[in-house]
Amino acid sequence: MKGNVIVGQSGGPTAAINSSLAGVYRTAKDRGAAKVYGMLHGIQGLLQERYIDLSEYITNELDAELLKRTPAAFLGSCRYKLPEIHEDREVYDKIFDILNKLNIEAFIYIGGNDSMDTIKKLSDYAIITGHPTRFIGCPKTIDNDLALTDHTPGYGSAAKYIGTSVKEIIRDSFCLEYEKGLVSIIEIMGRNAGWLTGAAALAKGEDCAGPDLIYLPELPFDIEAFGNKVKELLSKKSSVVVAISEGIRLADGRYVCELGQSIDFVDAFGHKQLSGTANYLASYIAGEIGCKTRAIELSSLQRSASHCASRVDILEAYQVGGAAVKAADEGDSGKMVVLQRLSDDPYQSGTEVKDVHKIANDEKLVPREWVTEDGSYVTDEFVNYVRPLIQGDVSPVMVDGIPRHLYRQL
Amino acid sequence: MKGNVIVGQSGGPTAAINSSLAGVYRTAKDRGAAKVYGMLHGIQGLLQERYIDLSEYITNELDAELLKRTPAAFLGSCRYKLPEIHEDREVYDKIFDILNKLNIEAFIYIGGNDSMDTIKKLSDYAIITGHPTRFIGCPKTIDNDLALTDHTPGYGSAAKYIGTSVKEIIRDSFCLEYEKGLVSIIEIMGRNAGWLTGAAALAKGEDCAGPDLIYLPELPFDIEAFGNKVKELLSKKSSVVVAISEGIRLADGRYVCELGQSIDFVDAFGHKQLSGTANYLASYIAGEIGCKTRAIELSSLQRSASHCASRVDILEAYQVGGAAVKAADEGDSGKMVVLQRLSDDPYQSGTEVKDVHKIANDEKLVPREWVTEDGSYVTDEFVNYVRPLIQGDVSPVMVDGIPRHLYRQL
Repeated sequence: MKGNVIVGQSGGPTAAINSSLAGVYRTAKDRGAAKVYGMLHGIQGLLQERYIDLSEYITNELDAELLKRTPAAFLGSCRYKLPEIHEDREVYDKIFDILNKLNIEAFIYIGGNDSMDTIKKLSDYAIITGHPTRFIGCPKTIDNDLALTDHTPGYGSAAKYIGTSVKEIIRDSFCLEYEKGLVSIIEIMGRNAGWLTGAAALAKGEDCAGPDLIYLPELPFDIEAFGNKVKELLSKKSSVVVAISEGIRLADGRYVCELGQSIDFVDAFGHKQLSGTANYLASYIAGEIGCKTRAIELSSLQRSASHCASRVDILEAYQVGGAAVKAADEGDSGKMVVLQRLSDDPYQSGTEVKDVHKIANDEKLVPREWVTEDGSYVTDEFVNYVRPLIQGDVSPVMVDGIPRHLYRQL
Repeated sequence: MKGNVIVGQSGGPTAAINSSLAGVYRTAKDRGAAKVYGMLHGIQGLLQERYIDLSEYITNELDAELLKRTPAAFLGSCRYKLPEIHEDREVYDKIFDILNKLNIEAFIYIGGNDSMDTIKKLSDYAIITGHPTRFIGCPKTIDNDLALTDHTPGYGSAAKYIGTSVKEIIRDSFCLEYEKGLVSIIEIMGRNAGWLTGAAALAKGEDCAGPDLIYLPELPFDIEAFGNKVKELLSKKSSVVVAISEGIRLADGRYVCELGQSIDFVDAFGHKQLSGTANYLASYIAGEIGCKTRAIELSSLQRSASHCASRVDILEAYQVGGAAVKAADEGDSGKMVVLQRLSDDPYQSGTEVKDVHKIANDEKLVPREWVTEDGSYVTDEFVNYVRPLIQGDVSPVMVDGIPRHLYRQL
């Protein structure tokens, strides 16, 4: 490379997004980039000329290893959608002025759907104006909902954390006996796509029956049928564990979490409260059956639990970062790196680049045939798909009993 | 030993309680016990003559290692308080009949306050009736609120999980920038004792500023002062992270989580909903400041996350189990094994036995001088106390990407 590289992170954080950053940095340096800049808080920060020289933070191999083990976006993230080019050329002119000033040859953006929209627009603008900077997207999202790639970096680690935690919750749930039984409802991220919720099935194995029911957001949720299933299960066992997506909806399109609102609960400060999906269903089951219920939200830990990351995921994230720089160096632009599954057993994957116009703003959902007919579990095909992605561990660098991260003064 | 041993687990599960069970089993076998029985669901299950022969489950050294890594009570737990002896002798007669039938020389009960009450009553009864079975308690609780012991097995692993998770949440919270800032409120277990909540301070280190505020249940909570502190912090930084105990209370004694109830929110099924403490405070802060807020409950994972257990904790739990059997074999009864801190640096601990009458139904709270004067953080003394207890890891036995546990058909 003759010029410099700039890299940004965008959208929701994951446990693997910094491994991609490490991959971008290493490959850019290996290919001769003089400087590797990091945008602070993505394209939004770049517009305010907020960026750093990554060499000041990654000073040796240990720093790079720590970066791979640091959850959430090291550079800071943003949720910023560029205007259409014809709507506001000024924003584009500003960005390209900064790129010129920094002598940027390759612009790498690590993110999900919205971030690929940014790559699409910037590369389109470069083509229109004959600007030489090349723009490559690097996929990242725990939601695993990007088109054209077999899976997205970040998903494997989140799936591993979910499988592990659900199994531990199942163990916990069977400990105490309640007269009318215990129903534990675990709420998992993924508003439209059920990839994360389905990963709860990973808890199942020789030593664990797994969750009893799994509900993805792709299919309409029937509360009454759900209640009947739980009732039936409680007639056979004392503890029932259910995994649900935060985004499950009724046949009429209303989110289950909206139902808590139908009674217009306003808090002491006059704000409408949106009761969580698990909370609502726990309360429903308690009311219908009279058993003890528990609502557990896996919350932001499912995207930030680096201490439980998947080695396959962290390595692939690193490779994808490197592949993005390589593609730009070889002249590609307006592309996203995708992961291809070459083989299931033994699992092997490779990278390719695909036209970002075919990826941006599209959403990949769980195929209908990977959910059981009655919609209350995922099939073996689903588990076979995700299982290779959670293999192997990335031992945290423990300092005084707690994982060490790479630190950037804020 | 000439007779047999029976062991039970009681109260809330932990990540270390099964390590104590493994220690009881190993030492009992080493000391010549013919049979080691496990009560299913504690004394309550024993009264229904539900028990197993542990040799059928721990068939080799690998099983014992898996047991140490299996969260929650392998034998099942209970929350059952024995009646006073003068109230209902029949219950005692029934228990002792079963002990006679099984030729029990030593009765080991792993649990917290209530479980030590069971040991106290059974040993008293044995003394009154001249029965030879010896009764020893084995401390266990993530709450760390037992008297006379430096700390309790289970606490170190929970503290390690809390420190690790809070650090990951802090990383996650700094990623995205919000116009008026982001306040994340993390709710941690421990209704009366702040040992777990204080462990959030473990996130603090060279690479992390730690949570901004920590509120234990031992001190009255002033909502207005809290709001002002948050406001002040938001004037200096964009992300504020707060750790609170689920049990914080106002000066007038009301639990903060009760305040959500003051508006008499009843759900669609007519049940009063108890809004969580973090949820309530997040809503309060959003109302007062207008910033974005997040409420995160660490929920039951903080007591069942074996995948993030502390090696010191798991080893001590094992030793405590062994010491309980040894004490019984040497003639002790009505005692609980305690951990003594022999040295801080290097950390060394040993076991002793203490009279269970001095422990049962007592509650050890965080000393006032281990909380800062304004009550919004723990002191270095607190951190120095807990830090040695989270050292070292217990590598999970990973099978197909997920930790393997020892399994008992239910």
